[in-house]
Amino acid sequence: MNMNDSPQLSHLDEHGRASMVDVSRKPYTERVAIANGEVHMSPSTLELITSRNLKKGDIFTAAQLAGVMAAKRTADLVPLCHSLDLTHIAVELSTKENLGGGSCGVMITSTVRTTSKTGVEMEALTAVSVAALTVYDMAKSVDKTMRISNIRLIEKRGGVSGDIINE
Amino acid sequence: MNMNDSPQLSHLDEHGRASMVDVSRKPYTERVAIANGEVHMSPSTLELITSRNLKKGDIFTAAQLAGVMAAKRTADLVPLCHSLDLTHIAVELSTKENLGGGSCGVMITSTVRTTSKTGVEMEALTAVSVAALTVYDMAKSVDKTMRISNIRLIEKRGGVSGDIINE
Amino acid sequence: MNMNDSPQLSHLDEHGRASMVDVSRKPYTERVAIANGEVHMSPSTLELITSRNLKKGDIFTAAQLAGVMAAKRTADLVPLCHSLDLTHIAVELSTKENLGGGSCGVMITSTVRTTSKTGVEMEALTAVSVAALTVYDMAKSVDKTMRISNIRLIEKRGGVSGDIINE
Amino acid sequence: MNMNDSPQLSHLDEHGRASMVDVSRKPYTERVAIANGEVHMSPSTLELITSRNLKKGDIFTAAQLAGVMAAKRTADLVPLCHSLDLTHIAVELSTKENLGGGSCGVMITSTVRTTSKTGVEMEALTAVSVAALTVYDMAKSVDKTMRISNIRLIEKRGGVSGDIINE
Amino acid sequence: MNMNDSPQLSHLDEHGRASMVDVSRKPYTERVAIANGEVHMSPSTLELITSRNLKKGDIFTAAQLAGVMAAKRTADLVPLCHSLDLTHIAVELSTKENLGGGSCGVMITSTVRTTSKTGVEMEALTAVSVAALTVYDMAKSVDKTMRISNIRLIEKRGGVSGDIINE
Amino acid sequence: MNMNDSPQLSHLDEHGRASMVDVSRKPYTERVAIANGEVHMSPSTLELITSRNLKKGDIFTAAQLAGVMAAKRTADLVPLCHSLDLTHIAVELSTKENLGGGSCGVMITSTVRTTSKTGVEMEALTAVSVAALTVYDMAKSVDKTMRISNIRLIEKRGGVSGDIINE
Repeated sequence: MNMNDSPQLSHLDEHGRASMVDVSRKPYTERVAIANGEVHMSPSTLELITSRNLKKGDIFTAAQLAGVMAAKRTADLVPLCHSLDLTHIAVELSTKENLGGGSCGVMITSTVRTTSKTGVEMEALTAVSVAALTVYDMAKSVDKTMRISNIRLIEKRGGVSGDIINE
Repeated sequence: MNMNDSPQLSHLDEHGRASMVDVSRKPYTERVAIANGEVHMSPSTLELITSRNLKKGDIFTAAQLAGVMAAKRTADLVPLCHSLDLTHIAVELSTKENLGGGSCGVMITSTVRTTSKTGVEMEALTAVSVAALTVYDMAKSVDKTMRISNIRLIEKRGGVSGDIINE
Repeated sequence: MNMNDSPQLSHLDEHGRASMVDVSRKPYTERVAIANGEVHMSPSTLELITSRNLKKGDIFTAAQLAGVMAAKRTADLVPLCHSLDLTHIAVELSTKENLGGGSCGVMITSTVRTTSKTGVEMEALTAVSVAALTVYDMAKSVDKTMRISNIRLIEKRGGVSGDIINE
Repeated sequence: MNMNDSPQLSHLDEHGRASMVDVSRKPYTERVAIANGEVHMSPSTLELITSRNLKKGDIFTAAQLAGVMAAKRTADLVPLCHSLDLTHIAVELSTKENLGGGSCGVMITSTVRTTSKTGVEMEALTAVSVAALTVYDMAKSVDKTMRISNIRLIEKRGGVSGDIINE
Repeated sequence: MNMNDSPQLSHLDEHGRASMVDVSRKPYTERVAIANGEVHMSPSTLELITSRNLKKGDIFTAAQLAGVMAAKRTADLVPLCHSLDLTHIAVELSTKENLGGGSCGVMITSTVRTTSKTGVEMEALTAVSVAALTVYDMAKSVDKTMRISNIRLIEKRGGVSGDIINE
Repeated sequence: MNMNDSPQLSHLDEHGRASMVDVSRKPYTERVAIANGEVHMSPSTLELITSRNLKKGDIFTAAQLAGVMAAKRTADLVPLCHSLDLTHIAVELSTKENLGGGSCGVMITSTVRTTSKTGVEMEALTAVSVAALTVYDMAKSVDKTMRISNIRLIEKRGGVSGDIINE
């Protein structure tokens, strides 16, 4: 679709205007994307989440469901994303005592699948982002210095442009 | 509302069940929250964004509008957030050649105001998150290793529990 | 997908965590689901609805449209539902002088069709539920004791697991 | 607003046309509504839910969160409902071995509060309805004959027209 | 808020960037906006609508409800609109044999009220636009040359900047 | 589907009741629809938009993105529209010094593509309508007499009933 030699930002047309990429002629293929991200927090916040969570699981379940629901609404949030029927969404959370740099917190991983003409990395990243916001929301009364970090694509398979494995 | 001496997760009731905090008796006050976050990318991606953006502004405008619209939909995304009428939302983006650790990218800052019974930090954080996802979406065709990081609350004023200034 | 002999709740994975069932490998088939439900009310409320409705049809039309629109948004409401493109939605309402147990009211029936990898019973049930809420809303100024009851699946065809006919 | 002696359907104007009731001149008052409803199922389904739920709480947490989120979206679903800022939403679920008539299942209760010009019974009823649909969705793989029943208003306080207590 | 002598586009800040106008310091006032618009169609289409509509009212009711629901979602659609609690929305449709220039069709009028810090003309215009799209949708199988025209503000009262009466 | 000789409104069933047309048996085909519309304004408003827009592009970009996002949500707005996965959406705006009848303003054109069982003219018309509302919103502080006009279908290809070219 692009005749230039230099790499191009696919959402900008030849006049530099934003538009939704035309995928009409692309084939339907099975695709999967995996993303993850972290919520960094103080050790005492992590301990509080862990102790409450062991009892009832509510914090992680809330974050997980919020992530799943957000993945389904990605095209409502990110202006130039295609709306797609997703065939599978899973969001998992786990506590991490060492997230690097001496910090601790929660690790979030999402897996999203579709049979579609375009990839689902934005859906996987959106699931992680909103799951992270939900953890933040539920812990913010006790910790004002949390940070959401390292939201990134881990793996992407099934697209026309080949598979991607980060890390 | 909480009789215990230890810090509590406000969204969990006495049985550890998730519920939306009751703010019925809290006064209406003017509140503001400021959040920011970063999209880390390769220098060549940043250069591409910068050059296209200088011409037309479309990438930053798209991210800015997506952030504003997402702030208005925070309560649709984060399960236990109150829906609020926001009186002001601003999202700003700027390019950063040094985001620490040798990486470069885009810095996003949001400011959200309300006259309401509860704070708007989740709205400010959601605006940043979705603006970051939008930058990611528009640059993902040329860079598969971007990371969204350091989404955090910078400032919060006007609440019953006092002002917060991080950094 | 499930090795156990005992029946399983399909939305819980092996660790008991909620996730959206993976339908990636299921075939696209034509599917239909039919559901119904009732709004029980006092005879005088039913008479009022009937008399106004005969003139203009507004109450039933409003409930019917609300049901159709809700069916399209099922995946936004029910956390682990797949979003699907529906090929047909019909919602019908009729007055019933005898709903059993001496009560009277409105009977609602929905029919939903898709060509998809998973069934549409939740879409049909959601259409009935929201149509019932809409009838309730329009009559609540004159009747504070209405009840929405007997929302159930009547028929489901076209799935891999065989057809279901209740009643 | 209504000069007639006979009871009137408030959402129909003098021509019998649907419209959203004008509440411009009504005062802001603190209001609460409580609703409940039931999901009837086979004893073996109830036992399965109970056993899985004791471990992780995921089914009830999912239904509870879906109910809370649906309450916030009532005005998006029920055409003539006013959109309101809700100050509190709680949804509780409990297992019932006897729901009358020999059936067993899950009882759902919602409580919704606002400081507003109009009541929140539709929000409470919508929370119960969507929580019930979510229970149904999570158990439908093992039970095709569940019924959602007895969705009704239990209590309503704080409105201009006086308090209502059913049962 | 604006020191310049020349008229300004309120949604652009001093750098020409889009942002949501800050209304934090504006008072709550009762506001109303009235808008209208037209759907132009062939005489035979109008006759078909009129004859079907006389029987059941479904086309006009559908358009009316779609307009009411769209008004509530204006802030979801128009990026820099504030979300507001609306106290009244009415949408009316009438057939017109002469819309000027020899054409005929349907006239749509919306009235929207709020008690808020900012006006509701966008809500009134959105109600008219979506009601017009709904009329179009229901008649498009018989008429491929309809036009939606003359969507405009008729009246606006209650704002800080004074009342506006067009026509 | 329709046995009568006279033209029929496809969304009304044999009883004159609104329902979503059944497209279950229609084939998947590649489809495109092109629509346009105009925002009429005073010459000084057009000049202001043009001068600000030349610098930063924000007004047109905002309208363009709002149009793209609205196209994706057409089925949420127009009650009887099918929800579809769109493969391409483009919205373009240009200034026009002569829109006929001595007026000037902005011309908006949308192009929408899908591979689906039903057409996308409503998506194209919705994109134009919401882009027009967004232009209106951004200019309304300086011009109270703008009009949105001539929203119409220009071209539609790929459907079972043949291609349509207006103008």
